[in-house]
Amino acid sequence: MGTHLKPDFAKRGKALKKMMAEKDLDAVMTSSQNEILYYTGYIGLKDDRLFMIFPLDGRPKLAVSPLSNEAKKFYPEIVYMEKFADVLACLKPYKAVGYDERAVSIMVYQELNKLKIRLQPATDALEALRIAKDAYEIEQIRKAAAITGKVLASVSERLVGRSEKEIADALEIGYRKMGTESAYDSIVCAGSNTQFVHHAPAAKIVGGKDAVMIDTAAKVNGYCCDVTRIFFRRMDAKRRKLYEDVKHIKDEITGIIKAGAACKDIEDFYRSLLRKKGYPVVHSFGHGVGLSVHEPTGDVLKENAVITIEPGVYIKNFAGFRVEDTVVVKKGKADVLSGMIPIT
Amino acid sequence: MGTHLKPDFAKRGKALKKMMAEKDLDAVMTSSQNEILYYTGYIGLKDDRLFMIFPLDGRPKLAVSPLSNEAKKFYPEIVYMEKFADVLACLKPYKAVGYDERAVSIMVYQELNKLKIRLQPATDALEALRIAKDAYEIEQIRKAAAITGKVLASVSERLVGRSEKEIADALEIGYRKMGTESAYDSIVCAGSNTQFVHHAPAAKIVGGKDAVMIDTAAKVNGYCCDVTRIFFRRMDAKRRKLYEDVKHIKDEITGIIKAGAACKDIEDFYRSLLRKKGYPVVHSFGHGVGLSVHEPTGDVLKENAVITIEPGVYIKNFAGFRVEDTVVVKKGKADVLSGMIPIT
Repeated sequence: MGTHLKPDFAKRGKALKKMMAEKDLDAVMTSSQNEILYYTGYIGLKDDRLFMIFPLDGRPKLAVSPLSNEAKKFYPEIVYMEKFADVLACLKPYKAVGYDERAVSIMVYQELNKLKIRLQPATDALEALRIAKDAYEIEQIRKAAAITGKVLASVSERLVGRSEKEIADALEIGYRKMGTESAYDSIVCAGSNTQFVHHAPAAKIVGGKDAVMIDTAAKVNGYCCDVTRIFFRRMDAKRRKLYEDVKHIKDEITGIIKAGAACKDIEDFYRSLLRKKGYPVVHSFGHGVGLSVHEPTGDVLKENAVITIEPGVYIKNFAGFRVEDTVVVKKGKADVLSGMIPIT
Repeated sequence: MGTHLKPDFAKRGKALKKMMAEKDLDAVMTSSQNEILYYTGYIGLKDDRLFMIFPLDGRPKLAVSPLSNEAKKFYPEIVYMEKFADVLACLKPYKAVGYDERAVSIMVYQELNKLKIRLQPATDALEALRIAKDAYEIEQIRKAAAITGKVLASVSERLVGRSEKEIADALEIGYRKMGTESAYDSIVCAGSNTQFVHHAPAAKIVGGKDAVMIDTAAKVNGYCCDVTRIFFRRMDAKRRKLYEDVKHIKDEITGIIKAGAACKDIEDFYRSLLRKKGYPVVHSFGHGVGLSVHEPTGDVLKENAVITIEPGVYIKNFAGFRVEDTVVVKKGKADVLSGMIPIT
């Protein structure tokens, strides 16, 4: 997908090295495909096993399987990993290595422990560096939002009579036809299934009186969007009231999003709005989005952080409504990237 | 997808308990979605964080996020995991717990270490239990092969003029239209890109003289197939020779597959066939397939193990050919599950 902006790897690497210097690390090792894409631009197949070794001095190395015998076309500093000892050899020169403790498996950790180096968990520090997005990243998420809108508009034309699973498949087909893919397994729930927050689309056929909740988004050049919309032909007064309340809460929260706002304050505000209406709190107001669909927001919202705003109310044996936008945090306001996707 | 066979969870659980007794474990913990599906039938969304605690005595517990507030509909013994301490509480009664060291992250391991229990790596032992497939499992893989064949037949009608990426997307669209999905990122490589074993489909447009290598398969009810086929309009003599050699080697290997055969002998035979023709050895003859697309084969082939046979020859700056079938190991022979997919 063409773009006039390009990722600035030099700038990202510089920020990583600053973090490493602060934490007294002389290298970082990660097996996260997202981190590797962020710092090197390298993207392989989803099942590829990759390790990046990022030194304080010098260029990062990428260890890949010998089956990725094309890797050098895309990134020059490739180490072909016949066995894990080839990764250990890359780490040997370093004294203190940060690693992503949420992605690295125990098996790898036990191998790392054979080296006489200081190993330091660094997932939080690594994720913090990716919270504020650059212009290139925001453009990808904006494109993902636009594609999500187009696919949702087309698929939502015909919901009644199709199963939840068929609708989820139609969304994936829509994304693929536009050369993208879904950012996560789409959630499609109809009627009483809307009470389930993370419902896996099933055989249930959408009826004419069913509201359908669709949580779906495209991924563009690795960057995820995250959107939830409600579709229906008619809605009874009780459900309508609940739905209007959720939309109102979404607008209220969107109104207080700005660079410098404390996430705890936003969360407290969200919970107070729910409680005021007598609704249970089931999940938080939102989360960060980027190369991963769930990223941290940080304690205080940074300018150019991309987050979701997704109030949700779920009433047992009745219905649930969640409405979700992806927004970029600006000075004094939120810029709603998914704003072009109509909310009925 | 309907089937007259059903998974026999009681039998699978019994085999697991036998392994646990042999290894002196009184519980097994795993966060592998495949293991969880195998023993409980539970399947959620791909990004769900799940933990199964399988005790030597009693029924396995499944720890899920509170957002999976539908889980009890599908599996009775659900623990809603507000924090990881809820998983630790489930493990407290046990003295010796086996875990899957390849799936469990360091972060989780460090939590587990807070308990005064003996932790024992068990990935190999767990995977060994899933090598020989039951009739239900073989039926799913057979269905996956049939769907793969239909989708490949349809997509391969129009390759010239489309990009590798468009062809890969068309395969996913085909699988989704049949209510399934791809078992792994399809590999589509055209012309000289066939020299790359794990090529990620790119913008390259297939030309009339290009051979196209497609490594793709459907997944049915969690079960993967794994197939590679070569498509072309015409092929020059040099490439034709290479391609015929690879097909011949595949037939030779298929001929020696049978229950009781030593995998080392098959691998040695494969390598000797390659060497005899002067070809380099780039990867092994095959691997196990099941809920994961790459599974162990065991040292000696078991009856009803499902494996791939996938000889591949890759010549730098020229071309590569891999032809791959998924077969079930029987007494005295291999039953080629993907045999209905024509090899041109």
